[in-house]
Amino acid sequence: MSFVAHPQTLHFDAPLPLQSGASLRDYDLSYETYGQLNAARDNAVLICHALNASHHVAGVYEGQERSEGWWDNMIGPGKPVDTERFFVIGINNPGSCFGSTGPMHRNPDTGEIYGADFPVVTVEDWVDAQARLLHALGIEQLAAVMGGSLGGMQALSWTLQYPERVRHAVVVASAPNLSAENIAFNEVARRAIVTDPDFHGGHFYRHGVVPKRGLRIARMIGHITYLSDDVMNAKFGRELREAVAQNAGGYKFSTQDVEFQIESYLRYQGDKFSDYFDANTYLLITRALDYFDPARAHGDNLTRAFEATRAKFLLVSFSTDWRFPPARSREMVKALLENRRDVSYAEIDAPHGHDAFLLDDARYLNVVRSYFERIAGSAS
Amino acid sequence: MSFVAHPQTLHFDAPLPLQSGASLRDYDLSYETYGQLNAARDNAVLICHALNASHHVAGVYEGQERSEGWWDNMIGPGKPVDTERFFVIGINNPGSCFGSTGPMHRNPDTGEIYGADFPVVTVEDWVDAQARLLHALGIEQLAAVMGGSLGGMQALSWTLQYPERVRHAVVVASAPNLSAENIAFNEVARRAIVTDPDFHGGHFYRHGVVPKRGLRIARMIGHITYLSDDVMNAKFGRELREAVAQNAGGYKFSTQDVEFQIESYLRYQGDKFSDYFDANTYLLITRALDYFDPARAHGDNLTRAFEATRAKFLLVSFSTDWRFPPARSREMVKALLENRRDVSYAEIDAPHGHDAFLLDDARYLNVVRSYFERIAGSAS
Repeated sequence: MSFVAHPQTLHFDAPLPLQSGASLRDYDLSYETYGQLNAARDNAVLICHALNASHHVAGVYEGQERSEGWWDNMIGPGKPVDTERFFVIGINNPGSCFGSTGPMHRNPDTGEIYGADFPVVTVEDWVDAQARLLHALGIEQLAAVMGGSLGGMQALSWTLQYPERVRHAVVVASAPNLSAENIAFNEVARRAIVTDPDFHGGHFYRHGVVPKRGLRIARMIGHITYLSDDVMNAKFGRELREAVAQNAGGYKFSTQDVEFQIESYLRYQGDKFSDYFDANTYLLITRALDYFDPARAHGDNLTRAFEATRAKFLLVSFSTDWRFPPARSREMVKALLENRRDVSYAEIDAPHGHDAFLLDDARYLNVVRSYFERIAGSAS
Repeated sequence: MSFVAHPQTLHFDAPLPLQSGASLRDYDLSYETYGQLNAARDNAVLICHALNASHHVAGVYEGQERSEGWWDNMIGPGKPVDTERFFVIGINNPGSCFGSTGPMHRNPDTGEIYGADFPVVTVEDWVDAQARLLHALGIEQLAAVMGGSLGGMQALSWTLQYPERVRHAVVVASAPNLSAENIAFNEVARRAIVTDPDFHGGHFYRHGVVPKRGLRIARMIGHITYLSDDVMNAKFGRELREAVAQNAGGYKFSTQDVEFQIESYLRYQGDKFSDYFDANTYLLITRALDYFDPARAHGDNLTRAFEATRAKFLLVSFSTDWRFPPARSREMVKALLENRRDVSYAEIDAPHGHDAFLLDDARYLNVVRSYFERIAGSAS
């Protein structure tokens, strides 16, 4: 039984300048906190979310079944990130669709729903927004910042943008930038959304429709890349949803009906996602992924980029993650070591692909637990 | 300078019974031949095509620039499959969109364009159609049958359906069935096509439109899976199409414009494909891929399935092919060896992913050349 979480929202009047040159004014940030900020205000841990997640990191909502936060196995009383020791903050990034100001809200300059006019936001912009929230909460330095995948990029960016304000960074299943293949998958998903006739150039809200066809395709592509070939074969293999005849292999012989279990699973995931996720948010978040590249301003030299860091690091990767494979984490470890930074690195042999960072793997959870015990020891 | 190829078409009156229980009547098969059938009629080599190819395997069309056949680097006078020694036949499979009867043709039973009513065809059905063409050409036994990818599945199926009619099978970059991940990618591509409003349930011909949005997405997904992560990084990396500013990394900060070169490449490939490829053919051919699974009727035991083979085999795979990785070829090699069949196997260390089977790699071309010299030696 998990504890009850209470989402909160803070309003910000001062404009947030964005990397693109645009700015965001009159915005809300939704967040949750778990545990107690200590008197020294030095036990705060910020959790950064990835594509399809929010400030609801841990706990449940009162009276709502199956409302566990997305990292509830990792964060809570007695869990690897122990909320009896740490004050944990989950935040929803601007541009997302779970509470903070995003494309489905009104642009204060025009009075119209933003839609496709919501400004492009980057990992760096999100970190700036997060820093403002922390300032409002009276937290000047984080014990740790932590995230997986795109969340890991934000954790990493904290150590570059605010090196003195973060003592530890926990970067899980992440990368210092996207590969061409990663960008390619994002682009196909975006094209599926943008070319859906119901997208209406990103102003579908006015038309009372949602580009569900595009969102479904985007999610199906995403799902394939989150899983490993191994785990897909183990979970679904070539199993049919229903064998219709005992001759000819039990096939229905149809190009449009569901024949294999994997098809049924993907269609279900696509349908579910298209019911709640915002199409403009999908474009914004995948673009933030594409753009993140801290080495770019340093002649693609990651070691030079990491000179700015002051934090200590834990990096974790998973052997079958082909979206952010271990080699990408090793690049970061190498660049940090070349700067003589304090780095712990765990490469977990797990079959689950990129999704592993959200799952219960005892070795993984224990690595994180040990690291946070070390943080707690040095903070106390 | 390549030789001039002459496409031909044969009409078949007798219905072709299909694995689904349906049949195809009054159909045409388009084909090309290169070289001369010898007096013993024992030097014929059949080339089977994959998703996006045809009977135009080698040579050029008179007066048409850049009209080289899709395997022109492999097949021709003095080439690895030497048309001065072998009589080579390329055939377009029924259901395809390059000449043989397909969904864009009229159903003789109804007088209407087939569209989505074209019967589901399988690898086994294609092999049956190919066998009828060969019979009509007076060829009772093939010196070799050869194909890459889905074409390799047809070559393999020949050795199971007509074991006495094929002396050698050359199976390149192929697999004994699709993995769940392969099926998943096919399914996303199919959903993109089927949910395009211009698909009209597969009867778009009547509406004078083409589901180009879906075809573009399908092709973009396909392209990503044909290439390796390595070759995409080497070819495109994170290069921008045009850097617009020297601050902020040169980004345009747009979710819909092309920003990275890889996006531009994929969009171009998608556009080009949607101009000429038939949407129903895409569904049919990916379904044939999904269904192929000769071990299915043998309790998923590939060794038992391969008991029927009598041919000698050359298998080739490519190290960075993640669509049909070397492990899948090794499964086939193992199952053939367990049946004490004569198998040669080459695993080529090539960076190009699945696409490698169509490219000029000297080691690959030499392996095929040597194997065909051996065939020529034993035939003469």
